[in-house]
Amino acid sequence: MKSWSIVAAAGVLMLAAQAAHAQATAPDANACVPSSLNVAEARYPCVYPDRRVLFRVAAPDAQHVRVRIGPGFDLEKGSDGIWSVTTTPLVPGFHYYSLQIDGAVVADPQTMTYFGSGWQNSAVEIPAPDADFYQPHDVPHGRVSQQWYFSKVTGRWRRAFVYTPPDYDRHATTRYPVLYLLHGWGEDETGWYRQGHVDQIMDNLIAAGKAKPMIIVMDNLNAAKPGESAAIFAARGLVPAPPTEMAAPQAAARGGRGARGGGRGARGGPGRGSLARPTFSEMMFTDLVPMIEKTYRVAPGRENRAMAGLSMGGAQAFGTVLANLDKFAYLGGFSGNCGGFGRGGAPDVHTICDGAFVDPAAFNRQIKVLFLGIGSEEGPGTKAFSDALTKAGVHNVYFESPGTAHEWLTWRRCLNDFAPRLFR
Amino acid sequence: MKSWSIVAAAGVLMLAAQAAHAQATAPDANACVPSSLNVAEARYPCVYPDRRVLFRVAAPDAQHVRVRIGPGFDLEKGSDGIWSVTTTPLVPGFHYYSLQIDGAVVADPQTMTYFGSGWQNSAVEIPAPDADFYQPHDVPHGRVSQQWYFSKVTGRWRRAFVYTPPDYDRHATTRYPVLYLLHGWGEDETGWYRQGHVDQIMDNLIAAGKAKPMIIVMDNLNAAKPGESAAIFAARGLVPAPPTEMAAPQAAARGGRGARGGGRGARGGPGRGSLARPTFSEMMFTDLVPMIEKTYRVAPGRENRAMAGLSMGGAQAFGTVLANLDKFAYLGGFSGNCGGFGRGGAPDVHTICDGAFVDPAAFNRQIKVLFLGIGSEEGPGTKAFSDALTKAGVHNVYFESPGTAHEWLTWRRCLNDFAPRLFR
Repeated sequence: MKSWSIVAAAGVLMLAAQAAHAQATAPDANACVPSSLNVAEARYPCVYPDRRVLFRVAAPDAQHVRVRIGPGFDLEKGSDGIWSVTTTPLVPGFHYYSLQIDGAVVADPQTMTYFGSGWQNSAVEIPAPDADFYQPHDVPHGRVSQQWYFSKVTGRWRRAFVYTPPDYDRHATTRYPVLYLLHGWGEDETGWYRQGHVDQIMDNLIAAGKAKPMIIVMDNLNAAKPGESAAIFAARGLVPAPPTEMAAPQAAARGGRGARGGGRGARGGPGRGSLARPTFSEMMFTDLVPMIEKTYRVAPGRENRAMAGLSMGGAQAFGTVLANLDKFAYLGGFSGNCGGFGRGGAPDVHTICDGAFVDPAAFNRQIKVLFLGIGSEEGPGTKAFSDALTKAGVHNVYFESPGTAHEWLTWRRCLNDFAPRLFR
Repeated sequence: MKSWSIVAAAGVLMLAAQAAHAQATAPDANACVPSSLNVAEARYPCVYPDRRVLFRVAAPDAQHVRVRIGPGFDLEKGSDGIWSVTTTPLVPGFHYYSLQIDGAVVADPQTMTYFGSGWQNSAVEIPAPDADFYQPHDVPHGRVSQQWYFSKVTGRWRRAFVYTPPDYDRHATTRYPVLYLLHGWGEDETGWYRQGHVDQIMDNLIAAGKAKPMIIVMDNLNAAKPGESAAIFAARGLVPAPPTEMAAPQAAARGGRGARGGGRGARGGPGRGSLARPTFSEMMFTDLVPMIEKTYRVAPGRENRAMAGLSMGGAQAFGTVLANLDKFAYLGGFSGNCGGFGRGGAPDVHTICDGAFVDPAAFNRQIKVLFLGIGSEEGPGTKAFSDALTKAGVHNVYFESPGTAHEWLTWRRCLNDFAPRLFR
């Protein structure tokens, strides 16, 4: 848990350093552009070319309105009765945020909402200089499908989203390799196709000949057997604050369970992927993978199967794959793995991840690409982990997203770098 | 516009009559079940067996908290600092709602949010006695896909959701008929697969042999050319209240444009489908239908093409189809069409819908099923319209959802009755 707290703290500090104090000057609403995540016709939040954001909120009888983004900014009530604030420049990318209105933490009704931190909160997008790679272009388009299936392990209906590449429906006999791709803590199976732009990223890579056409399965890492807690709010280190007071005691009470566990299988133990959930791995092999391989035209064998995830989903991917090396040939962690996150110093490659790397030659024969991605502002731990692996002879790819923290722009870039390396 | 206001008023009155006054007695939170639309682990809103709903909201420093559902209910602050209210019994089905916290209208952070009234508001589901038909069962499952495409008419990327039936991927050469299915005012292309359960309804019907396997295309009825207003908030008669004060002037200013128009083509005019938008029809034939027929295995010809919609989407379906009878053989309006909504009395079949029914025999040869669906609590207008059509010799199907108003349970039931009649 400790390393996760450090990551979160690093992210907050980074934003705080860039944001400093809000400007109280009268905003010039004509110079800004409504965020691309706003609902139709909503002008606010509105983003200036220099990445300041103007928030305006109608709360006629409120005494105190605050926007919870970065370090947080108090709004001031104007002569028109509308509360306003212009932030200092925010970093590029997708940022969750919420409003605090007389103590109630709620979404801003002017934006689309995105599932993160266990609820549907608001978000604002600061255009990235390299945004082209996740925008739609005039290329053949795949599709992301909602796929329901019943899980024998959890005793419940579950929903996955499945990306099929542009030519999937036309090449009626072609079989495709599969990447299982997980969201992060407090998010769900919608994260990668909504916040992540998975289909645009893949469509663009495939059209450019940079990535092989593949199926991508996006499921919900929260899986619980009957009687088990789903523990969706478990990783307290990353919780900014629960959306309501009612959620807090539940999160606290369930924190222990969610953080327990480790990889499933013979080598599973407390040292490896401490945030990985054995129930998810069991559900995956019992229910999800068989459903996918029955429903979609999937190429057989471990060399056609990859797994990756972001943040807690990265820890889950490491936990699942390292305990099941006979089933996967590719492994990616985007701001999340079983080893170093925010920690400084070189980890001990012989003990980290429950000893998964004690035999580098054997490991290299099994995992064709081991990918470690991170935002440059998230701390040096992942780089140190990668360096230690390299020094010990474990082949790995280190990718660093410039100028980004523990947020979706980091993870979009990670996918954009990871996907072309798969199934070669 | 007038008829829409009447429908909205009828719905509100119906709810008011059933809701009366909120109970101020201490709620017994153990006897209720969290709404199925709550985020994971959120206990509230909580639904009692008698359909009362307990709302609990954390707003520590607020002076006034109200839940905007039915007639609206003021919450009371308890000794635990949490605001609470138990409503009187609500009608079964899916209800949008919002919170008003010191004047700010926001979503409840404890539920998933659904796009309606032009923003992402909260919702609560009161279990319906016949809920089985829209629940997942152990039957083969189709999938709903996110499909991006570029519109030459609007100059923008658009998103449709497309249901393909369970056997679509296995029968690699089979071609399927297509139903184009629209949402209502203030909603978007996500409405039918989220609020509507379109895939569960179709999977269950197809598994039971009651409906033919078909493709269903769910697009966004809001389409505007460059420079045109999207007019998403146009139909003022159905607006409960804008989510923020900022939205209000925009909605007012754009109301006229959205309400104008009529059917596209030679017989278009102010009398037919007054809420139908010619730009949508143009976009549909120029961009959407060609994309669908290129991307999916679609059976050719008008006898394999149907169109339907709910509320304003029903008006759009009538406007589009009646002006293009050479392109469709099936037409459905769920609480929305070109004729009677809430109006009493028998309409003049010779003039209504811009004269589309002046030659009943000719009409009957072209439209194999004309479907008029409505909730029993929405007023007698649709029944009067159906009766007048029948009397004039125009074949039509009248379907009434018992005990429901202008809400999604009406429309789920409409689809469940309409789909089996298609492509026979």
